[in-house]
Amino acid sequence: MMKTTRVKAFGTESPEADLKQLNIDRREVTSKDVSIDILFCGVCHSDLHFARNDWGMTQYPVVPGHEIVGRVTNVGAGVSKYKKGDLVAVGCLVDSCKTCENCKADLEQYCPSWVGTYGGYDKHLDTNTHGGYSESIVVDEAFVLRVPENLDPAGIAPVLCAGITTWSPLRYWNVGKESKVAVVGLGGLGHMAIKLAAALGAHVTLFSRSTNKIKDAKELGAHEVIISTEEAQMEKAAGRFDVIIDTVPYVHDLNPYVGTLGTNGTLVVVGYLGPLDPMLVTVPLIMGRKSVAGSLIGGIAETQELLDFCGKHNITSDIELIKIQDINKAYERMLKSDVKYRFVIDMKSLKN
Amino acid sequence: MMKTTRVKAFGTESPEADLKQLNIDRREVTSKDVSIDILFCGVCHSDLHFARNDWGMTQYPVVPGHEIVGRVTNVGAGVSKYKKGDLVAVGCLVDSCKTCENCKADLEQYCPSWVGTYGGYDKHLDTNTHGGYSESIVVDEAFVLRVPENLDPAGIAPVLCAGITTWSPLRYWNVGKESKVAVVGLGGLGHMAIKLAAALGAHVTLFSRSTNKIKDAKELGAHEVIISTEEAQMEKAAGRFDVIIDTVPYVHDLNPYVGTLGTNGTLVVVGYLGPLDPMLVTVPLIMGRKSVAGSLIGGIAETQELLDFCGKHNITSDIELIKIQDINKAYERMLKSDVKYRFVIDMKSLKN
Repeated sequence: MMKTTRVKAFGTESPEADLKQLNIDRREVTSKDVSIDILFCGVCHSDLHFARNDWGMTQYPVVPGHEIVGRVTNVGAGVSKYKKGDLVAVGCLVDSCKTCENCKADLEQYCPSWVGTYGGYDKHLDTNTHGGYSESIVVDEAFVLRVPENLDPAGIAPVLCAGITTWSPLRYWNVGKESKVAVVGLGGLGHMAIKLAAALGAHVTLFSRSTNKIKDAKELGAHEVIISTEEAQMEKAAGRFDVIIDTVPYVHDLNPYVGTLGTNGTLVVVGYLGPLDPMLVTVPLIMGRKSVAGSLIGGIAETQELLDFCGKHNITSDIELIKIQDINKAYERMLKSDVKYRFVIDMKSLKN
Repeated sequence: MMKTTRVKAFGTESPEADLKQLNIDRREVTSKDVSIDILFCGVCHSDLHFARNDWGMTQYPVVPGHEIVGRVTNVGAGVSKYKKGDLVAVGCLVDSCKTCENCKADLEQYCPSWVGTYGGYDKHLDTNTHGGYSESIVVDEAFVLRVPENLDPAGIAPVLCAGITTWSPLRYWNVGKESKVAVVGLGGLGHMAIKLAAALGAHVTLFSRSTNKIKDAKELGAHEVIISTEEAQMEKAAGRFDVIIDTVPYVHDLNPYVGTLGTNGTLVVVGYLGPLDPMLVTVPLIMGRKSVAGSLIGGIAETQELLDFCGKHNITSDIELIKIQDINKAYERMLKSDVKYRFVIDMKSLKN
């Protein structure tokens, strides 16, 4: 049987219970593994959905966390990319089949057998995987990322999910200096979308329901804010955008936003999983060769590209640092969108 | 006042009335105009919708027809592209602003001011434009197309609408030898989609609700037919297609077809204008970076490219040739999808 090390973590054993301290087992490093002492872990909405079994697929106990930054403490004999002391990161994926068309195309996130950082199947221990709300993690080097040393390691954590989720569509739909990009919703994903699109040289507009967001959006790099509840502003925006990144995590009407796409424009849904209610109308799609698309996080190579881009442009997430003991309060505040713009756990607090 | 010529046509003066012979005025050729003696005119579903005011925008009298093939009889002093005797065609557009971003990009079909071949605004005569169910037509040379002389002029007529409507998305979404293409629906548009995708070298699959279509689809060039009402066949097709051309002209569920798209795949709606009922679900879009898009006919340069491609590959539409006096019967049969695959009017019949 594989040797394991018992480590402290924070998680829950049922959908109704608060998260609390518990112990989990990490495997010893195999030939290709990297062992990481976790310094910071971002708090994603998915963590909460998963802990509470909102998607009906959680196996307990669950230890959430897939925005992980830490230092390498040990590497397997076959590891070539990392050495002890390196500043590294782990995002939403810790394994995939490595042989399918998607894996071969650096699109591990679309591999039918990808393994989530938590709630996936750990083939080594024949149990479910456990995420970053823990002292340490052991990950195949192919799924470990290098973090530029010039960046704040706490602020970079949310880049591993919120960042890559917006970066991947910006890159796939060729956003650059000539692009007109709009972002729907200013939360964890939206604030990263603004920063990244602006750094790519695009003209960036935020759609928001409230004038409260105007000042913050502009500080984050938006050139303009359109109040989506103001009909005159929406009409004036008709046909303007090449790409819209829609980060809103609940059901909402896409049709008004489709109207603001120009010819060949694409609206990319990254936040909402479910049926489009009210119904999407095909007329504006046909009349302007427009698309409504979806996009899921990003591949490993693309995530490394993003971390390098952040290093070069000195981009991190705007965060509120918390102790692990405050995670349940943080979940409640997250449900009220009361965070600018991402909670990050200082994992030192777990060692106390 | 501009000089006009009175010509025979077939049209209607009210939504309830059958089409009948009537007279319309054609302008004398201006400097850039081409006068065309109409030989053949295809019968499009839109003709019927427009004649019956199904879209609530018809001005009467209406003379339908936007799949026009004929011979040049006269050209204006400034015309350089055509001369008397040339075999030419006119599709859905007879004018556009020529100055907007779309026009400059050869996307006249997305110009906000494009002028339809019928039911548009004729700036020369200050009246509505009249289509191809007539003896002759006068059109700006910029909207006249050259027809390869090796092709059957009756069979090429439907290429001007049914053909270009499927060609444009096949080209925009880069269909070629490596592509896996599916077509939903086997009517005027669907049969052209199969022929064109096959001629581009793609592997072509027809989705059909009925096994009756299998033989015909294969004769048209499809490599495979999937019966969309057979759950096992649909499940087996999961994740297979790069591009789906959905030609179905009435409301239907797109979700099963989205499931058959592979990573980065696009379903293009070309036949149905309206809300997507049942609601489109975002989950498979996100889980495979898939898109649902629309596309409208094609630009003038792209239509010429298609005609040249048809000339080279000897492609025409499968048609049933009718007399203009049988147009009302043809409309009734079209409503029952009782045509393989397009009615084309032999315009000689109007001269009798």
